[in-house]
Amino acid sequence: MSEFALIDRIRQRAGTRADVILGIGDDAAVLRVPEGQDLVVSTDTLIADVHFPADTAAADVGWKALAVNLSDLAAMAAQPAWVALALSLPEADGDWLDAFLDGFLELAAQHDVALIGGDTTRGPLSITITAHGFVARDAALRRSGAKAGDDVWVTGTLGDAAGGLAQWRRGGLMSAKLRHRLDRPTPRIDAALALRGIAHAAIDLSDGLVADLGHVLEQSGVGAEIDLGRLPTSRPLAEHFADEHERWRLQLAGGDDYELCFTAAPADAFAIEQAMAACDTTATVIGRIRADAGLQLFTLEGTDFVLPVAGFDHFPAKDA
Amino acid sequence: MSEFALIDRIRQRAGTRADVILGIGDDAAVLRVPEGQDLVVSTDTLIADVHFPADTAAADVGWKALAVNLSDLAAMAAQPAWVALALSLPEADGDWLDAFLDGFLELAAQHDVALIGGDTTRGPLSITITAHGFVARDAALRRSGAKAGDDVWVTGTLGDAAGGLAQWRRGGLMSAKLRHRLDRPTPRIDAALALRGIAHAAIDLSDGLVADLGHVLEQSGVGAEIDLGRLPTSRPLAEHFADEHERWRLQLAGGDDYELCFTAAPADAFAIEQAMAACDTTATVIGRIRADAGLQLFTLEGTDFVLPVAGFDHFPAKDA
Repeated sequence: MSEFALIDRIRQRAGTRADVILGIGDDAAVLRVPEGQDLVVSTDTLIADVHFPADTAAADVGWKALAVNLSDLAAMAAQPAWVALALSLPEADGDWLDAFLDGFLELAAQHDVALIGGDTTRGPLSITITAHGFVARDAALRRSGAKAGDDVWVTGTLGDAAGGLAQWRRGGLMSAKLRHRLDRPTPRIDAALALRGIAHAAIDLSDGLVADLGHVLEQSGVGAEIDLGRLPTSRPLAEHFADEHERWRLQLAGGDDYELCFTAAPADAFAIEQAMAACDTTATVIGRIRADAGLQLFTLEGTDFVLPVAGFDHFPAKDA
Repeated sequence: MSEFALIDRIRQRAGTRADVILGIGDDAAVLRVPEGQDLVVSTDTLIADVHFPADTAAADVGWKALAVNLSDLAAMAAQPAWVALALSLPEADGDWLDAFLDGFLELAAQHDVALIGGDTTRGPLSITITAHGFVARDAALRRSGAKAGDDVWVTGTLGDAAGGLAQWRRGGLMSAKLRHRLDRPTPRIDAALALRGIAHAAIDLSDGLVADLGHVLEQSGVGAEIDLGRLPTSRPLAEHFADEHERWRLQLAGGDDYELCFTAAPADAFAIEQAMAACDTTATVIGRIRADAGLQLFTLEGTDFVLPVAGFDHFPAKDA
């Protein structure tokens, strides 16, 4: 297939929306942002064997490439609208492209996202997506809004994707459920939209809880304490990783969960529980924001616990 | 250097604008499109040894990566505003990044373009930029607007970049001026803005005149005749490629010039000449749009001339 044939195939399958004035096929797309709304833009690249195992099914690659970008919009509480896709392929493989689009467009349809343009080039497999969404003026959730006394929340369960990846690396027994969490993350769009006006700060968990919560703490000028016993844990993760320390390491330092981590006033806990239930998303309080800097991890037994995890040394140790 | 250190370096050097509500450093950027304006979005990837010689200076890579994207905005007559940068680097090389940013930001400053976000990853050298601009509602220049009887115009001179690339491939004597045209294309922003309301259709010349004009003809449902004797030719190209047929091949099939090709009513020729002079851009009428399909190339001697150039067989041959 030629590049033009590939683009034609993408164009034929791309969805559209009323606010797409001109989609794929010209030098650029022409788009209309609703009045009173700000535009939210995020770009993420996925490279084979860096961001996903090279043996990942094409449909899963398509899903994940879009999911990680929509997850960034969710972290701002933005409503997704349009994406541009830059696809670098080793060869012009129509079957691979069709399967990739199957996964990509399945997720796009769930959130009414239109593919509005892009570029195809020959090269090592790599996908760069630029996602565009809307948020009411001054309503975006930032990393910098956490306040001392806030609860620290996370959606879903933590460590599943890292568990699946760890099993894949070992090449032994694998949990299909964990691998599914690695390959098909759920961008928490509905939860994020429900948190507008309630949450003080938010980030999506792509690099792992310690690293990503660390960005929130740094940009908010605060610290936090996290109760390891409260980390939400899926049944498959608990079954396959029975050792508590190994599991905590996956949950604290493993990335790729694409859950939301957010902070909010304790007085809003009930409102948050109701809002999360309404969009069928679980959410758990795992700790609290403190005025003094640093990230303290503790267990119910009351002993401070510092894990030797990558990234953790970015944060100063705290005295008990 | 770590990825975070690279991002910090980019953030420190990125410019800003009043309409960037939140720039680099959160999960996504928050941007404000002016009221009454549509958003214009284009994405282009450049890969080493595909889109530029791998020995290209880092500053030139930075310039060119931005230039080809701004050129797409120019082809829509959009005013550039913001760009997102996804950069894949074989190693976290701070010196290379600084030089890349030198070229990138030099061009960005010329057009008041802010770098609003992006992603850095480890991988083969590849740059994907998503450029954002504005155009008044329904004022975007499309490929589909060419009308029978229109003049066909091009800005600048044609074939220089392809000439420089041909010399580089031969490894022999090189013209610094031709190589400069390959490495530092000029996005025709000012010319494009001046053509709003005058030109009927426009495209930028990235793949070569025959291929790109072909898109305009196809989408407009028209044909064209081009006078080869009128193709604007730089002095270095004429000096280094004395053979007329070889030169025409570079001018018709060689890409990378990033000049504008546009069509307009002959009655507007004087207005266009004045508008182009006002922004210090040369522009030349090279032919005319015809009602019947196909692209006919002819010389002043009146003999039809069909060049065996790649892409040319996309278009039906015309009887004399």
